[in-house]
Amino acid sequence: MSQLEELASRRTLRHVWEYIQGGSGDERTLAANRDAFRRWVLRPRVLVDVSQVDLRTKVLGRTVDAPFFVVPMAYHGQVHPDGEVGVARAASEAGVLATFSTLSSFSLEEIAHASQGSPRWFQLYLQPDFDVSRTLVERAERAGYTAVVLTTDVPVLAVRDRQALGGFAIDETVPIGNGDRVVSPNRAPVRQGEYYRLRSDAASTWEVLDRIRAVTRLPVVVKGILTKEDARRAADHGAKGIVVSNHGGRQLDGTSASLDALPEVVEEVGSEVEVYLDGGVRRSSDILIAMALGAKAVGIGRPVLWSLGVDGAAGVGRYLSLLTLELATSMALCGCRSVDEIDRTLVGAAPGSTVPPVRR
Amino acid sequence: MSQLEELASRRTLRHVWEYIQGGSGDERTLAANRDAFRRWVLRPRVLVDVSQVDLRTKVLGRTVDAPFFVVPMAYHGQVHPDGEVGVARAASEAGVLATFSTLSSFSLEEIAHASQGSPRWFQLYLQPDFDVSRTLVERAERAGYTAVVLTTDVPVLAVRDRQALGGFAIDETVPIGNGDRVVSPNRAPVRQGEYYRLRSDAASTWEVLDRIRAVTRLPVVVKGILTKEDARRAADHGAKGIVVSNHGGRQLDGTSASLDALPEVVEEVGSEVEVYLDGGVRRSSDILIAMALGAKAVGIGRPVLWSLGVDGAAGVGRYLSLLTLELATSMALCGCRSVDEIDRTLVGAAPGSTVPPVRR
Amino acid sequence: MSQLEELASRRTLRHVWEYIQGGSGDERTLAANRDAFRRWVLRPRVLVDVSQVDLRTKVLGRTVDAPFFVVPMAYHGQVHPDGEVGVARAASEAGVLATFSTLSSFSLEEIAHASQGSPRWFQLYLQPDFDVSRTLVERAERAGYTAVVLTTDVPVLAVRDRQALGGFAIDETVPIGNGDRVVSPNRAPVRQGEYYRLRSDAASTWEVLDRIRAVTRLPVVVKGILTKEDARRAADHGAKGIVVSNHGGRQLDGTSASLDALPEVVEEVGSEVEVYLDGGVRRSSDILIAMALGAKAVGIGRPVLWSLGVDGAAGVGRYLSLLTLELATSMALCGCRSVDEIDRTLVGAAPGSTVPPVRR
Amino acid sequence: MSQLEELASRRTLRHVWEYIQGGSGDERTLAANRDAFRRWVLRPRVLVDVSQVDLRTKVLGRTVDAPFFVVPMAYHGQVHPDGEVGVARAASEAGVLATFSTLSSFSLEEIAHASQGSPRWFQLYLQPDFDVSRTLVERAERAGYTAVVLTTDVPVLAVRDRQALGGFAIDETVPIGNGDRVVSPNRAPVRQGEYYRLRSDAASTWEVLDRIRAVTRLPVVVKGILTKEDARRAADHGAKGIVVSNHGGRQLDGTSASLDALPEVVEEVGSEVEVYLDGGVRRSSDILIAMALGAKAVGIGRPVLWSLGVDGAAGVGRYLSLLTLELATSMALCGCRSVDEIDRTLVGAAPGSTVPPVRR
Repeated sequence: MSQLEELASRRTLRHVWEYIQGGSGDERTLAANRDAFRRWVLRPRVLVDVSQVDLRTKVLGRTVDAPFFVVPMAYHGQVHPDGEVGVARAASEAGVLATFSTLSSFSLEEIAHASQGSPRWFQLYLQPDFDVSRTLVERAERAGYTAVVLTTDVPVLAVRDRQALGGFAIDETVPIGNGDRVVSPNRAPVRQGEYYRLRSDAASTWEVLDRIRAVTRLPVVVKGILTKEDARRAADHGAKGIVVSNHGGRQLDGTSASLDALPEVVEEVGSEVEVYLDGGVRRSSDILIAMALGAKAVGIGRPVLWSLGVDGAAGVGRYLSLLTLELATSMALCGCRSVDEIDRTLVGAAPGSTVPPVRR
Repeated sequence: MSQLEELASRRTLRHVWEYIQGGSGDERTLAANRDAFRRWVLRPRVLVDVSQVDLRTKVLGRTVDAPFFVVPMAYHGQVHPDGEVGVARAASEAGVLATFSTLSSFSLEEIAHASQGSPRWFQLYLQPDFDVSRTLVERAERAGYTAVVLTTDVPVLAVRDRQALGGFAIDETVPIGNGDRVVSPNRAPVRQGEYYRLRSDAASTWEVLDRIRAVTRLPVVVKGILTKEDARRAADHGAKGIVVSNHGGRQLDGTSASLDALPEVVEEVGSEVEVYLDGGVRRSSDILIAMALGAKAVGIGRPVLWSLGVDGAAGVGRYLSLLTLELATSMALCGCRSVDEIDRTLVGAAPGSTVPPVRR
Repeated sequence: MSQLEELASRRTLRHVWEYIQGGSGDERTLAANRDAFRRWVLRPRVLVDVSQVDLRTKVLGRTVDAPFFVVPMAYHGQVHPDGEVGVARAASEAGVLATFSTLSSFSLEEIAHASQGSPRWFQLYLQPDFDVSRTLVERAERAGYTAVVLTTDVPVLAVRDRQALGGFAIDETVPIGNGDRVVSPNRAPVRQGEYYRLRSDAASTWEVLDRIRAVTRLPVVVKGILTKEDARRAADHGAKGIVVSNHGGRQLDGTSASLDALPEVVEEVGSEVEVYLDGGVRRSSDILIAMALGAKAVGIGRPVLWSLGVDGAAGVGRYLSLLTLELATSMALCGCRSVDEIDRTLVGAAPGSTVPPVRR
Repeated sequence: MSQLEELASRRTLRHVWEYIQGGSGDERTLAANRDAFRRWVLRPRVLVDVSQVDLRTKVLGRTVDAPFFVVPMAYHGQVHPDGEVGVARAASEAGVLATFSTLSSFSLEEIAHASQGSPRWFQLYLQPDFDVSRTLVERAERAGYTAVVLTTDVPVLAVRDRQALGGFAIDETVPIGNGDRVVSPNRAPVRQGEYYRLRSDAASTWEVLDRIRAVTRLPVVVKGILTKEDARRAADHGAKGIVVSNHGGRQLDGTSASLDALPEVVEEVGSEVEVYLDGGVRRSSDILIAMALGAKAVGIGRPVLWSLGVDGAAGVGRYLSLLTLELATSMALCGCRSVDEIDRTLVGAAPGSTVPPVRR
């Protein structure tokens, strides 16, 4: 598994690779996301009967085969022709929840078809015209998506030097899967001086949650929360879930690692809404730490694109399968027979580190 | 923006580059200035209407277009023929406050002319003969400078190994813009054993502030303060502003980062005088952190010389414009619609770091 | 002594070397084991009469010549033909306690013979068929082993990338010293996807301690404890000793360093059972720190294999002799004349580090 | 000054260089000595009249021109033919106190002659025969040395891998300056297995201080103290000064940095005896930090040998002169006009560091 990133770097076009890997600003938050896991240690228990380890959990009321999920990322088609359809198929076979972006290379209906009845969520970027947003949500509901994930941390695009330097833009030949009415801020080259592209949703406030909830019966998950203050607002506006996230270090640089923000969010709203986390998750120990700190499920981002780039749907399938096996192994070594047994007593602060207080 | 430093290093004469980049002693403080920003994280809020972001602020009663300013640095002419006149023009066009050194390559009147009515401050190195100091201040007042910035952290020149090794001296052919009566301690090669050049102002005490205030109606800003004790004295002696600064790590090595000293200064005198900061500021997140900790405005040093070296006035203009755009972007991503909304709740201590206590 | 590792790396077959050196996962715990010692400093006392320094101590009632011991490791024969018989001979000559693995290259009887009456412990991997376990324990008791060390942290094998990548498997031609009925999980190549090899003892619980104690008069030492909770259980189930250990960073990745776990285990059960430690121990200062924090004796792992690889039994003998001499020197420099004088007052927290609290 | 070490490394024989530079064990303490200074920052005050800066201080009642001194080191003759006589001459010209080792290349009388009336201390290694020790002390008193520095941290020689690997031994052709009766533990090659060379003084206890005081009127300074417990004993046995030291990281590896041990020693006995420090001191900021934490004077070790190796007595003179100038500069930049003004308020804990508490 430790070879995956390097393998992918060799098989991916340079400018696409920089787009995937890069963060914003000095990539401080990008690095922080990984470092944060080092501030916690696992406290394993031995001589527990772990002959059977059950990875299943319930997310928004639906059972999934593992407590991790694929986060929404734009244009999988840039990485491999299998695109989101390949990821959907692999996730479905692994019994893993996947989230698909408004900015997908395939239409959400095509992706749903490939998901074969497995749980899938639709990620919404608010569109300039709310009618377009509404239509997307209605299509998602019809296509069997079981939640709408509203991304809130992109009112404007952040400055991403790696993309600016590489002159990256989504290739014009890559279709916008969800139709031409969808606005994609990435499709023209980013030139210096153009960083502050005012997006149509820069004016959106928390009331937009109420508008979305008015047009769909699907639960709404708010993605991009890093503070207890915003977690409180999300809960008060009817969100059913929150993804603690800093957009993989790709938006505001200088924020805390998402793992560092998790405890305060869980403390504030953990008893009311489900709290998830993404950012820097690579291996099973990361998943265990995040869950011990209160995450209901944990999102995987870049590794999915890496494995997609290496071998399409088959690559993603292999990665998800390895991660599942590793998680089962690690749970066994922790003495946890089921996801319910992963709790705060499983982790401790790494000596030499100060960690956010956890009061639960 | 992350390429600027490297680009500049290739376009600048080696000994000038070492002069610009170098710090004193083991360059411990030079490094600390940058590291300090890593000890804080931003706490962004989402779903705020950031369709309009207003960067304007008031500094000593005058409105500027952005909450950052150019710090005083000697002899811009070494870096590019445009010199201070170029910087003045670029700052003026960006609506940004600039401070110009006693030791400028152009006369303060030429610089004022290029500033086209934009706000500009005059930095004063106390001269052996106080009459020379007085004359400089009077000329600055006549030329429309709106404040006198008294540098206090150079009673003697510090030991700077990089300069000593490179035998650096300001080129004799570079004119002293403000006239031959101005004493420039850098104009002879620094030889080993000559470090302790007793400057004429080594005997100056806080009373000198009263003397300066007696000869000008301009507000006096004291630059080079790192402790609450000195901040108190500056306020008591009638300073209207304080620049928390360690001279960019070029004077006493081993001091705290200027950012680390900011909270205690703000706590002591923040309600009485305006507090600014320079040292290690490179990008918008640095500016946001310093302002959240109480800085009224934030000074930019080396990047201005870098961009001047790369492309003269045009280069500086491009840098200031990029920084403005990046700051607007970052404020939007923080959920701050105006400079007033940047407050202590925007930052938190990075886990794993201890930070100076902030009691406000 | 600092050259040993490098020397060994050049004399050992690549895939065997990766097997010896490697840890699991991201090798986070492997590194933590070493780093932990840096968080403590020694507080030496001078002008103590150290003309005689006595290294002897009692372990489970038997006197040994030094307070360190050889930890159990599989298949020494892979490293050098002298194998466990060579290690036994060297340990015996040094008067040092050695522990031998169920998965040894020689039979436990051959090893016992080479030990020449010196103290030796038998490490037990629980076997699919408890009768096999029982037979092994009975043979060990007959062969003069003085304790059974039950390894508890391998209910399943962890994911070890280095082995997976190298396709490592114990060479089929290396005999299983203790007979064909012993199950060895390492003897087939580890393929991707096969990480979760459910071992026969995955179902074992603390009751297994009672079963073992019922079939032997030997004291049982429980190895692989990292929490006070498990230490309590071990003591309650009649263990006479506990090895605080994370299997040398080879099982669950992300645990604390074993040294970091030592204080809480000592605090919980130190007055009831003997507590030992292994993991990251290389030199005498490591031993002193662990003992000061309450370890009765300290286990040495990889260095024994390194010295075995470099020069067989003679190499091990030289290493043990050097370590003995270095420990005597360091005790003298600490002002400790005997092992009893190594106590909590000998160490302090390294500034800049937070360390686990020690309340004794 | 930052070039000195590199320059010296090129001009010194390899095995002598390793002897000078090396520490014991893993050289953990060697590195800690330097790192410790990074945990403190200077808090400079500006607009103080520093036109005159007075570096003079009193050490054991005698005025010296600077608050730093040369520590005792063996066999300067290995580094340069000028040896201790050269160092004595340079120190004398700089008005700096120097300490000379029992194991000098020149006789203590020759060194005294070169010192030309400047203050000098004699360092004593206890000899197998106390009569030899007594004779040395009597000779030192007659030769005008003004204190005896008793080294206490070498009851046995520590394991120093660099020396062992290089087969270092003091060249037989280098004379023992103080006569053949003096025992030098370094004069035979150190072979592996010989680390624990029991020195004659391994049996010495604190009573030896009383014996020395009985044979001389000179004040006795105890060198090699790292704990408050031993500082108390030294004071109780009549020491007039204490050098907080870990023998430059060359004896027990794993101790705290000497700077880290300074506060507890000062707190315990600072009002009764003079406390000095050596270990890791290179530049003026190091001296200021140590003095702010209570050191009466600060010892310089390796840099003296480096400068001696580069250019003999002239090199040492240049180094001492540069250090004096740099210290004067730094004091001026701190706003300290005299050594008396260097106090606890001059330093603060570097953010991100925990430092030993200082209660004075």
